[in-house]
Amino acid sequence: MEGEMRKTEQKIVVAVDESEESMDALSWCLSNFFSNNTNNTLVLLYVKPPPPVYSSLDAAGYMFSADVIKAMEQFGSNMVNSVMQRAEAVYRNFETNINVERVVGCGEAKDVICCVVEKLKADTLVMGSHGYGFIKRVLLGSVSDYCAKHVKCPVVIVKHPKEK
Amino acid sequence: MEGEMRKTEQKIVVAVDESEESMDALSWCLSNFFSNNTNNTLVLLYVKPPPPVYSSLDAAGYMFSADVIKAMEQFGSNMVNSVMQRAEAVYRNFETNINVERVVGCGEAKDVICCVVEKLKADTLVMGSHGYGFIKRVLLGSVSDYCAKHVKCPVVIVKHPKEK
Repeated sequence: MEGEMRKTEQKIVVAVDESEESMDALSWCLSNFFSNNTNNTLVLLYVKPPPPVYSSLDAAGYMFSADVIKAMEQFGSNMVNSVMQRAEAVYRNFETNINVERVVGCGEAKDVICCVVEKLKADTLVMGSHGYGFIKRVLLGSVSDYCAKHVKCPVVIVKHPKEK
Repeated sequence: MEGEMRKTEQKIVVAVDESEESMDALSWCLSNFFSNNTNNTLVLLYVKPPPPVYSSLDAAGYMFSADVIKAMEQFGSNMVNSVMQRAEAVYRNFETNINVERVVGCGEAKDVICCVVEKLKADTLVMGSHGYGFIKRVLLGSVSDYCAKHVKCPVVIVKHPKEK
């Protein structure tokens, strides 16, 4: 194993979300994996939350008319576009021509990220240390903790300077 | 912040110990941070465990004669040399001339690693996901978990292929 890990074409997955930190993770990745005209591939992965399950007995059931559900789906799609556009603005700042793939998953972020990394046989996963919601993080532990434990490839955890 | 993280001379700390995984972490680091004749500096950090506290009332106190203590200290020093020599064998496999610094700390691995990373103003910490003893890991959580949470710079967690 020792000294045998060199690989010229790496597939680097960056998990992006609405957080500043995930854009920092992307910047870190670009600086460290794409600064020398490599043949590496950047995979931008965004995970939409799973659709809520609506019960007809829900006291607030009247809220979830078809219009509201449609509006929520629209909001989800807008969020994907917004995050992806922001990510594109970050990597366009770099002078190199980068092979970029975009993947949008849907479900629990931690499960989807691990699954995509595995499926793509990624060489490295890069992500922010937080992201995916403060409350959820407190209740369930951070997504990055989970991914660092469960994916097989090296995981880079990047923090936002303000969090330092 | 976006697009401003590029830095030509980085200080990369690799926490090495007796585990295969930490040597994999070193290999990963060399492949990804030192393959293009950079001016990066590699800091090899080894942390010796803290010296045990001996009580004169300890039932097994007779075991800790001066000779035994000296033998344990000698064992610790031999371990440092053994790990450092192994690390040197790994980075000598790489063709580039690498600026290497060696740091040997003493104490609780997680605290010492975070402290050294902070003190050296390291740009990245690279470490194996396990290391520092199975029992301790189960009881106290892994050192890499702790470091990923507490150091300010990006942390890379590398796994041994056998652990995949």
